[in-house]
Amino acid sequence: MSKLEAAIDAIVKVFEEYAGTDDNKKSLSNAELKELINKELSNPDFQSKIDKEDIDEALENIDKNHDGQVNFREFSQCVALLAKGCFKKKYGKDKGKDKDKGKDKDKGKDKGHR
Amino acid sequence: MSKLEAAIDAIVKVFEEYAGTDDNKKSLSNAELKELINKELSNPDFQSKIDKEDIDEALENIDKNHDGQVNFREFSQCVALLAKGCFKKKYGKDKGKDKDKGKDKDKGKDKGHR
Repeated sequence: MSKLEAAIDAIVKVFEEYAGTDDNKKSLSNAELKELINKELSNPDFQSKIDKEDIDEALENIDKNHDGQVNFREFSQCVALLAKGCFKKKYGKDKGKDKDKGKDKDKGKDKGHR
Repeated sequence: MSKLEAAIDAIVKVFEEYAGTDDNKKSLSNAELKELINKELSNPDFQSKIDKEDIDEALENIDKNHDGQVNFREFSQCVALLAKGCFKKKYGKDKGKDKDKGKDKDKGKDKGHR
């Protein structure tokens, strides 16, 4: 498999490994999530590639529907946020994101400038 | 690095590799995206782990702000969707997702059942 395919495969495998310890194989309990974070997101080399605030933001918002469990959709979104944090540390904030927000918000106002 | 950290690192590296061929290193042009898809998402072994409709859905919606470029946020969201497609193929649809949709929609209606 390619680098990207192997990375996607690994994301699924890591989730399975930690979600599989109790009888609900399709979601991470709080205890399983804590174990995953301690074991999978603690390497100093990795932590040097991302700001702590971005790790915290990704993990704080992981349980989007607040049901006390983390399903695979929520987990994969968290992984995307962590990757974005690494990219931001290297290349700076993605101006595109602010531009999108600005564009929707001021759709009417700045028509003249386009 | 752990399996998860290495996967996150790989997602950034793959994006850099293909976004770096023109002077805009922070986003993928259409040509760069096509090259990435052909080279990074064509392995038969990987394609057997995900339904074609889920690959198509992830790639069709990749340019969320329709600016003809794919920034890293859009790319990482696409990777999350592809991972979700692989998980769905293995474990079936994530009922949680429909339940969330249902929950918001019928907030008032089904109060009695909870």
